[in-house]
Amino acid sequence: MVKYIRKSVRYLKPYTPGEQPGTKSKVIKLNTNENPYPPSPRVLKVLRKINGEVLRKYPEPLADSFRKIAGRIFKIDPDMIIAGNGSDEILTIIFRTFVEEKDKVAYPVPTYSLYPVLVDIQGARKVEIPFPDDFSLPKELADVDVKIIFIANPNAPSGTFIKPGHIETLVKKVNGKSLVVIDEAYVDFAEDNCIELAKKYSNVIVLRTLSKGYALAGLRFGFAFADKRLINEMMKVKDSYNCDAISIRLAIEAISDQRWLRETVGKIKSQREWLREKFIELGFNVRKSYANFLWVEVGNERKAKGIYDSLKRRGILVRYFDKKGLRDGLRITVGRPSENRKLIKEIQAILGAQDAKR
Amino acid sequence: MVKYIRKSVRYLKPYTPGEQPGTKSKVIKLNTNENPYPPSPRVLKVLRKINGEVLRKYPEPLADSFRKIAGRIFKIDPDMIIAGNGSDEILTIIFRTFVEEKDKVAYPVPTYSLYPVLVDIQGARKVEIPFPDDFSLPKELADVDVKIIFIANPNAPSGTFIKPGHIETLVKKVNGKSLVVIDEAYVDFAEDNCIELAKKYSNVIVLRTLSKGYALAGLRFGFAFADKRLINEMMKVKDSYNCDAISIRLAIEAISDQRWLRETVGKIKSQREWLREKFIELGFNVRKSYANFLWVEVGNERKAKGIYDSLKRRGILVRYFDKKGLRDGLRITVGRPSENRKLIKEIQAILGAQDAKR
Repeated sequence: MVKYIRKSVRYLKPYTPGEQPGTKSKVIKLNTNENPYPPSPRVLKVLRKINGEVLRKYPEPLADSFRKIAGRIFKIDPDMIIAGNGSDEILTIIFRTFVEEKDKVAYPVPTYSLYPVLVDIQGARKVEIPFPDDFSLPKELADVDVKIIFIANPNAPSGTFIKPGHIETLVKKVNGKSLVVIDEAYVDFAEDNCIELAKKYSNVIVLRTLSKGYALAGLRFGFAFADKRLINEMMKVKDSYNCDAISIRLAIEAISDQRWLRETVGKIKSQREWLREKFIELGFNVRKSYANFLWVEVGNERKAKGIYDSLKRRGILVRYFDKKGLRDGLRITVGRPSENRKLIKEIQAILGAQDAKR
Repeated sequence: MVKYIRKSVRYLKPYTPGEQPGTKSKVIKLNTNENPYPPSPRVLKVLRKINGEVLRKYPEPLADSFRKIAGRIFKIDPDMIIAGNGSDEILTIIFRTFVEEKDKVAYPVPTYSLYPVLVDIQGARKVEIPFPDDFSLPKELADVDVKIIFIANPNAPSGTFIKPGHIETLVKKVNGKSLVVIDEAYVDFAEDNCIELAKKYSNVIVLRTLSKGYALAGLRFGFAFADKRLINEMMKVKDSYNCDAISIRLAIEAISDQRWLRETVGKIKSQREWLREKFIELGFNVRKSYANFLWVEVGNERKAKGIYDSLKRRGILVRYFDKKGLRDGLRITVGRPSENRKLIKEIQAILGAQDAKR
């Protein structure tokens, strides 16, 4: 059986998505950075209009109607936009378009754990550069000789943000020798973004998703901005009908309701700050976050795993990474106010019980 | 710019999907083998129930609820099923899981023109074996030393069908040295299928789609049956959330309504036979079809292109392939009775005008 499998796949340690309990589950889900609020009512209204005629026919191959509206909203040439089945698919398309076997791919770590998986599948080589303690851009990134540099910004699971100006400095130093992919999955929760770099530099690709800010993780829709010559090559590689007819229509409506986005993001950010204060009061170190989650430094591997397990028993899922350098913390999605209060209450109870045991 | 692009992509002649005029278009679309009828009312009923809660959360990573029901309906172990964003995505996953650079991939030609594109993207090598005149399985397929043999069955654009027994003979001769992928995109319109081969032989993969028989081309949902060890490796390669939450729910409902499928397919088959007779009356050679389209041999390249152009001007799209060996025919999807009657009427008019000109 093994002989059929590509070598790079055979030994692959696949990406582990966070637990997804059934839809009927009563669990409080703070483990996969979903938006705690349902999407814009305008999105649901368009969903109600989908009919059999839309479903029986193939969708637009290039999602042109989305690209047109997105071009207007994000003030960019529609030819500089590609849409995908989630930004994960666009990451896959990037690898298949640009990365040859044995090519090197760099990214600061810790970061989104899908990058090394995609490097492995493509048979390429990883160049992992540790973030400095302040999670600023590692200077070494400018000197590595690689095909692509990936930067998740805001970064996961740290929640930190690198100023566009600092990324631009890197892009200038790289001077066209690598592509620079800026993965802005969480950017709707930050104060700035890098779209201007995609307009200004022909080797910069900026990724976006509707999964977080727009509350459409179930829809699978992401997009990217880049030089139109890069976009054209990616279009050749993607599946012919990679975005379904429903998602194209709902995506258009989602990005058109920027007011909903601002309001929802505003609520989540204010809860994020509340939650961070509470964690600090509880004695944890929590970096300022620019995303919809917090990286809570528990500071002790057994204690972190213990809190994760206890929360799970109490019906709250948070994200624990069984990975070197990440075992002493927990990544916790910002939920609704009631969920966040419950979380803090349960953690207080867990910590109290632990203290009592001592 | 070119330096960033993988060599195999740089020179790639991408797949050309059929024209997709806007949804408001009044064109009669007989060019991309869509089902002329809307999907099962049960599917639309489930669509009405999708709410914001479904959309804001990530879908099931492995589409397990679909696999469970599909296992029951197709009488196969759910672990032997993988779901994808259209069967095109599963084809892509197959290449990324099994095909190394420089590996050889064989298929009889003419066939689905996506296969050579996927071979090229992967940097693999094509072994194209011409079908004999009767479109039976080329004997040479058993002797080529390749990683994968692809067989579209029913085949496109010929519409022909190879009996499962003949494919089994090939599988036995191949004796495990290649994977055999049987692409059953059109099988709902045939009289038999190869699922038993996937159960019996660990090197056989059978592909299905909801795009044709189930009238859900806009939804993007396909699946495959294979040995669970092959499925497990493909699961490692696919994007984490490759099927969206809506499509999983609608796909379950679609395959659960086998009565709708039988009735709809019955109508299309009877129209297919009517249409074939009419074309034969008009003097064209049309092979018996086991799909939802006919390959109409016009017998003359200029005449074929002329009919295609004239039909387009008259508001009817059919498929013309500007490819060696296919320029003297037209692939015509079976539409609704009124569409088929209109098609025949217009072709009669076009042929009459051509005769008058002479």
